[in-house]
Amino acid sequence: MDSTEYQKHGKDMVDYIANYLETIRERRVFPNVSPGYMKELVPPEAPEVGENWEEIIGDVERVVMPGMTHWQSPHMHAYFPTTHSYPALLGDMLSDGINALGFTWASSPACTELEIICMDWLGQLIGLPKQFLHKEQKTLSGGGGVIQTTCSEATFVALLAARTEAIKRLRKENGMDHSSDALLASKLVCYCSEQAHSSVEKASLIGLVKLRLLPTDDEHRLKPDSLKECILNDRKQGLVPFYLCATLGTTGCCSFDSLEQLGPICEEEGMWLHVDAAYAGSAFVCPEFRHLLAGIEYAHSFVFNPSKWLLINFDCTAMWVKDSGALHCTFNVDPLYLQHENSGDAIDYMHWQIPLSRRFRALKLWFVLRAYGRKGLQAHIRKSVALGKFFENLVRKDDRFEIPAKRHLGLIVLRLKGANALTERLLKNLNKGGKVHMVPASLKGTYVIRFTITSTRTTEEDLIKDWKIIQDEASKLIADGGMSIELPSANEHGLAKTGPRRKMLLRRRYTWAHYNRQWDMSLLLSNVPVRPSVVNGTFAALYDNKDRRLSSSTDDVHDIDGTSKESSGRRGERSQQVTLKLTRKVLSLDTGFATMKAGPQPIGTNIFVPTIDEMSNSSAEELSLPTQADNSNVRSENKSEMEVPKSPRKVWLPDPANHLLDKLANLKVFRKLGLSPTSPNESGVIPDPLLLKAKQEMNGHYGVDG
Amino acid sequence: MDSTEYQKHGKDMVDYIANYLETIRERRVFPNVSPGYMKELVPPEAPEVGENWEEIIGDVERVVMPGMTHWQSPHMHAYFPTTHSYPALLGDMLSDGINALGFTWASSPACTELEIICMDWLGQLIGLPKQFLHKEQKTLSGGGGVIQTTCSEATFVALLAARTEAIKRLRKENGMDHSSDALLASKLVCYCSEQAHSSVEKASLIGLVKLRLLPTDDEHRLKPDSLKECILNDRKQGLVPFYLCATLGTTGCCSFDSLEQLGPICEEEGMWLHVDAAYAGSAFVCPEFRHLLAGIEYAHSFVFNPSKWLLINFDCTAMWVKDSGALHCTFNVDPLYLQHENSGDAIDYMHWQIPLSRRFRALKLWFVLRAYGRKGLQAHIRKSVALGKFFENLVRKDDRFEIPAKRHLGLIVLRLKGANALTERLLKNLNKGGKVHMVPASLKGTYVIRFTITSTRTTEEDLIKDWKIIQDEASKLIADGGMSIELPSANEHGLAKTGPRRKMLLRRRYTWAHYNRQWDMSLLLSNVPVRPSVVNGTFAALYDNKDRRLSSSTDDVHDIDGTSKESSGRRGERSQQVTLKLTRKVLSLDTGFATMKAGPQPIGTNIFVPTIDEMSNSSAEELSLPTQADNSNVRSENKSEMEVPKSPRKVWLPDPANHLLDKLANLKVFRKLGLSPTSPNESGVIPDPLLLKAKQEMNGHYGVDG
Repeated sequence: MDSTEYQKHGKDMVDYIANYLETIRERRVFPNVSPGYMKELVPPEAPEVGENWEEIIGDVERVVMPGMTHWQSPHMHAYFPTTHSYPALLGDMLSDGINALGFTWASSPACTELEIICMDWLGQLIGLPKQFLHKEQKTLSGGGGVIQTTCSEATFVALLAARTEAIKRLRKENGMDHSSDALLASKLVCYCSEQAHSSVEKASLIGLVKLRLLPTDDEHRLKPDSLKECILNDRKQGLVPFYLCATLGTTGCCSFDSLEQLGPICEEEGMWLHVDAAYAGSAFVCPEFRHLLAGIEYAHSFVFNPSKWLLINFDCTAMWVKDSGALHCTFNVDPLYLQHENSGDAIDYMHWQIPLSRRFRALKLWFVLRAYGRKGLQAHIRKSVALGKFFENLVRKDDRFEIPAKRHLGLIVLRLKGANALTERLLKNLNKGGKVHMVPASLKGTYVIRFTITSTRTTEEDLIKDWKIIQDEASKLIADGGMSIELPSANEHGLAKTGPRRKMLLRRRYTWAHYNRQWDMSLLLSNVPVRPSVVNGTFAALYDNKDRRLSSSTDDVHDIDGTSKESSGRRGERSQQVTLKLTRKVLSLDTGFATMKAGPQPIGTNIFVPTIDEMSNSSAEELSLPTQADNSNVRSENKSEMEVPKSPRKVWLPDPANHLLDKLANLKVFRKLGLSPTSPNESGVIPDPLLLKAKQEMNGHYGVDG
Repeated sequence: MDSTEYQKHGKDMVDYIANYLETIRERRVFPNVSPGYMKELVPPEAPEVGENWEEIIGDVERVVMPGMTHWQSPHMHAYFPTTHSYPALLGDMLSDGINALGFTWASSPACTELEIICMDWLGQLIGLPKQFLHKEQKTLSGGGGVIQTTCSEATFVALLAARTEAIKRLRKENGMDHSSDALLASKLVCYCSEQAHSSVEKASLIGLVKLRLLPTDDEHRLKPDSLKECILNDRKQGLVPFYLCATLGTTGCCSFDSLEQLGPICEEEGMWLHVDAAYAGSAFVCPEFRHLLAGIEYAHSFVFNPSKWLLINFDCTAMWVKDSGALHCTFNVDPLYLQHENSGDAIDYMHWQIPLSRRFRALKLWFVLRAYGRKGLQAHIRKSVALGKFFENLVRKDDRFEIPAKRHLGLIVLRLKGANALTERLLKNLNKGGKVHMVPASLKGTYVIRFTITSTRTTEEDLIKDWKIIQDEASKLIADGGMSIELPSANEHGLAKTGPRRKMLLRRRYTWAHYNRQWDMSLLLSNVPVRPSVVNGTFAALYDNKDRRLSSSTDDVHDIDGTSKESSGRRGERSQQVTLKLTRKVLSLDTGFATMKAGPQPIGTNIFVPTIDEMSNSSAEELSLPTQADNSNVRSENKSEMEVPKSPRKVWLPDPANHLLDKLANLKVFRKLGLSPTSPNESGVIPDPLLLKAKQEMNGHYGVDG
């Protein structure tokens, strides 16, 4: 393709994009494809000779678009927004055209200098203290802003910087050298709330430090007292608290940790305070939301995603630090500075990040800040929030629904009153329909649908339409008495296969953590912490009629016909530990089965992994089932409806586990739910206790006879 | 900006980009700006209200372009290429327009599925074994390809996966749990050659593992025997070797480690073999270069950058692994798999990488693979290599120059015969001129100019022009007898400042490693390992007349007038350790001053940091000066010319260090070079021994009387 052809095709592309965006409302927001759909549509190898552009571009609608989730659709309400805008698109177009890298000042001075300027502009716009601005710095390792690729990366970078500082301190105190860094790291422990983003856990895993997920209060905010208590306990154990990730606008329900309360604790304890405001950060361009930022002066680092809600296409993550020296020390051993008067203007950003290279992302930021101005950005944020309120009011008018946590900004969480399974089924049906798309979250065991205002194209009319779809689906669900909650057959569970190759899943330990004891496959669509970590499984959140057997990544799978990969002695030993695992709905939200002994446990490199034996041997006090009472303040009106049914119900277990039935029957979770383990009935239909329970409750709620 | 305006401005942007690229030859490839230039051109804050697009876009030429290094210029020969192509630009344009994220299959199925397909296509194109292809996998944690942001990140991800596997093994062997992971990591040691990319060192630092940089042979390839020996020694010390990063196409001179030799060692030792082919990987689309890939079947992971040389704009890094389970275990504790028949088609790529979110980068890859086809890509690579050969022949015809390492692909290293300082000055003058841009490298103490064929627009005519510029500059340099090597004044060194606030730099330890004992500021432009790590200093590689004082990031700077930040007792103690440090040219390439005691030392978390006392107390054997003989095979014709001058020369030292003069005079490095420390003369002009030496040598080489 020469430049003349590019000019033609490029202009066609501009038209295509404009048309795509302006007519996006007509597309199904969520695709109707099955895994592997695309490989049927394309050849198995790259072509030998180049193809015509017309052929290639024609395949966008044939091959790609049928499998797209349209994030810019006004009916997209899943995850968080990834807004963009035309000026941003032009900025990235130009950046790609120039295709220059700016890893050092010298590699392309304009890339670095424009980033310095734009990050100062943006920092001022959202009201950051001047310690975070480049232009206010007097030292060569002073504060400033940098564009990172994602918030997850920024959280990790901040954790690393904090780790570096902590290790440096410990090294000095103990007269050790760099060779002891890993040893010292083994003492470090970091904190976040149970509602923090999963990236904090990922960061602690990679960073080889212990993590504690702390409980939250009624409004899902990290409890300062719990933090203090936990720090105290950890110090007693010889651990060294070094990092807190506070969240402004959690993924689950957009709750805000209080920096004013947490900041002083961090200061006192010499801990690095990192603030993750991935979504909510954009709102701080409006003064009326800035009270949620109070206490920011305590923070060592702050990050938000202009690529989420500030009209800049992905990727663009704005991160500020007070002490860039901590970053330099993270990525270099004993960094040195040139004492040049221009040093502060000549940052080598490669020392602020994990990768070496970096795109010229400041261009699109510059274009957007200038094309909208402060007032334009404020208007955009205020419009989203107003739409959020508008939708909240729609929901409140329908008393079949409830909003179990306060709305913040453009995120509303809602659910059908009653059992979690009902709301879960509602969401799955809606996503299957593809006209509106949302993802779930678990708030202290309560399954909610997260409804986010994401698209700049969303109008009140769109929301009315979306709400109508949701209401209609709910009515249908309730009307058929829950029969649209499909009963998975034994075969569909993959458990009824026979023959010598039939596999049974054995795991030595049931990997699982207290903070997310209630979950189901559909929660995979969410990004809040999810344990056990199911990988390559998000399709199952949609295709829940299919095989949902789980296997571990390690050596814990073997054949039940005796062709074990392990020695037979070992196998026998392990068979005793067969658990319910996640092959069945019994581990769905309503049946999560145990809490931790007491208080938060360190996870990450020190994860708590009770075996089935531990669980069955635990006392009743240790195995308490989370009940509706956990959410009493929010859902008090339903308390009585959530009482555990009196008559025992059956739980199907795969044959080989039958010898464990007695053991399981004694688990408090079963007793509390009134369930007792059993085998599948002759028809092969599994009597699903959850569905039965859900149906029973519906009778109470909606007066429908299933 | 509404869609109509976008259509207008977008089409103008297409024209602007086409015009920019087609006329890029006319622009100065390297900018003529000083640090901080931009802040004079823009307001200190973002505008209050949105600006007109015309104003904004007009500022691209006024504000941005003057500070750009034009990476697509045919006269750009620095770093490695970042090629792009019109189909790639269209791909990213569309990706930005759609602005969808593909962190899980469900978040946008087409994003994941197109990536699976394109990575298989690409893997087949370059001849990867089928263990690396998605479509060949039978297990849920099988091999496959993934697009990462950068090679640095891929190297780090591979190191993490290897660390996970190693720790898992150690945990099992020692009956430990996750809480011991950091402790176990302290035993781990990884390897790469001294010519490997700096990102390996960065990865080892962040990964909290020890790193050994191994010596290379005459062709700058990692020596398998050294690896074996080092592993043996490490095992004796109780360390656990776990990871080798082999490089195909090093940054310095594009040398190729032998996978056929290194692979079996890794296999035998149970080590993860990661292959970094960042630049050279693209060449493997041509069968004639694939012999350099021999042994790839031993690799656990392989990475190259289509964004470097395969016509795809940054970012696009292609990484393949044999065992994706190792990645899943890295980013999750004990991951679980769904045993669904479609699992292999429904990858959740968030578990293959550090960040959560990811752009739809497969689109541009798809467009390029289809628009060019196998043959088109081969033709592109072959053209670059032919141009490399063409340029090599130009250089060989001028006997003032030498090519101290074999040319591979499109990278030629060259230098003026004689002292390093001469070539260094040549390069600085050329970059100052801005008509052609290159960066240096250090090959075992030999300073070279790296000349890379980067742009798809480069022609033979361009190369003839570039070569003429280089020759003319060399002639000028030689003609004035080296006087264009500017003598920095004491004031310019920032050392002649007076008054109570005069600062003196004190460092407890001189941070420095054996593998890069020879370096100078200009090497900051390069990306090969550079120690000590000077941050925010690449501008100094260009502005070498300015202040080059160095300070450490820690607390090692204090006032010489006695207003020390430290206690005075401490200060006195530390003053004894004042070293030459990096305030002067005496640490330039020609005067690097000591080698390690014996063999490679672990760096990274276990860096070797001799103090001045250690150095001055060392025996003559320990402090051997690298001489021309180190490169005898390459530069044998110059051996005699490099003999150390017999008469003693003077080295200027700052006053406060005078008491160290005697000590320093006894260093073998000084004796060997025939230098003796002294104070600046009365005129304030520093007699720079390097420059004198360079001039003297020039006399020998070029018959010019300085």
